[in-house]
Amino acid sequence: MPRSVLPKAIDRLSKSLEGLPGIGPKTAQRLTFYLLSRNSEDLSEFGDAVKELKENLTDCSRCQIVTEENPCPICSDPERDQTKLAVVEESLDVVALEKARFSGIYHVLGGQISPIRGVSPSDLKINDLYNRLQTEAIEEVILATDPSLEGEATALYIDEQIKNRIKDKSIGKNIRVTRLARGLPVGGDLEYADELTINRALEGRNSY
Amino acid sequence: MPRSVLPKAIDRLSKSLEGLPGIGPKTAQRLTFYLLSRNSEDLSEFGDAVKELKENLTDCSRCQIVTEENPCPICSDPERDQTKLAVVEESLDVVALEKARFSGIYHVLGGQISPIRGVSPSDLKINDLYNRLQTEAIEEVILATDPSLEGEATALYIDEQIKNRIKDKSIGKNIRVTRLARGLPVGGDLEYADELTINRALEGRNSY
Repeated sequence: MPRSVLPKAIDRLSKSLEGLPGIGPKTAQRLTFYLLSRNSEDLSEFGDAVKELKENLTDCSRCQIVTEENPCPICSDPERDQTKLAVVEESLDVVALEKARFSGIYHVLGGQISPIRGVSPSDLKINDLYNRLQTEAIEEVILATDPSLEGEATALYIDEQIKNRIKDKSIGKNIRVTRLARGLPVGGDLEYADELTINRALEGRNSY
Repeated sequence: MPRSVLPKAIDRLSKSLEGLPGIGPKTAQRLTFYLLSRNSEDLSEFGDAVKELKENLTDCSRCQIVTEENPCPICSDPERDQTKLAVVEESLDVVALEKARFSGIYHVLGGQISPIRGVSPSDLKINDLYNRLQTEAIEEVILATDPSLEGEATALYIDEQIKNRIKDKSIGKNIRVTRLARGLPVGGDLEYADELTINRALEGRNSY
């Protein structure tokens, strides 16, 4: 067993790091040796940050974002536009939209519909979304799921469901459903864009 | 400040992970969200592994490998060939040689000579190496530093120094200094090998 040459503490941390996505055994070992070179305060801070990560976290009971306070800072901010609701897959997507200065409110689904991975609509916070559309002053639902196959399917599903509910009047008819535009990423190179993106950019072209 | 949307605990762990080599802010955030999905026992084990990493570790007083017991398991193993000493840069290099079933003993320098990074011979455990050559029954010193510019320079320097010491008789003349062979990596492709490696493979060619 070649591994037993190293102290148990090193193998132990390597094993924990190996559990992280994108980190294989070799990288884990290299990271562990890097950490060996750090001082004890750094290690103590890092270790505590891991151990205490989930201690005070919960999901916002309104928008489902991961938060320390419930309701979350966004939901309890009276300055936010309460008529525009962005539906996203994960809390991290909220960070991306915040960077782009979106000023409305959010609803975090907790994933995307994926038959392959066994995620059905009932596994996501979609019913909570319908409830919000019935009780809140929302005028526009912006479907901001990923521009991937599964993100598109999730957006399509939610769009249909909302339209059905508007038809049978369980949701008010003033609610508009929109989808983030697909097209060329800003700063990108046309020659490197894939066909689907170019198709979407052509379909969505606007007058100049 | 877009980051303040996320709970402090998430930013805190992201910041610690960002300190690791090869992990940027985006990856750090993604890893943190992955860790959020793990159960508390996993996080507790990971956190403790970080915090306790260095607690019982020291450098072996003989070979300088990082170890829990002093002397290390290799140095205290009577089965090892005490006449063959492999000089390596880091403890991780010992793992690599152990996998290749090297049966001798080791000396860990703690790095490589690098004027650019301000590492001079006196920053490495080179004097300890000379002391071992004076007091132990070593017959062969195998220079197993990296096959890089700095690894080669380190090996060359140590080779010269040992030969000088043999000349002035501070080290016994029965000590042979060798260097790991440079050549084509096994399983590699000749067409992808770089010129230097091919040159070395030509220089070191052996009869068939």
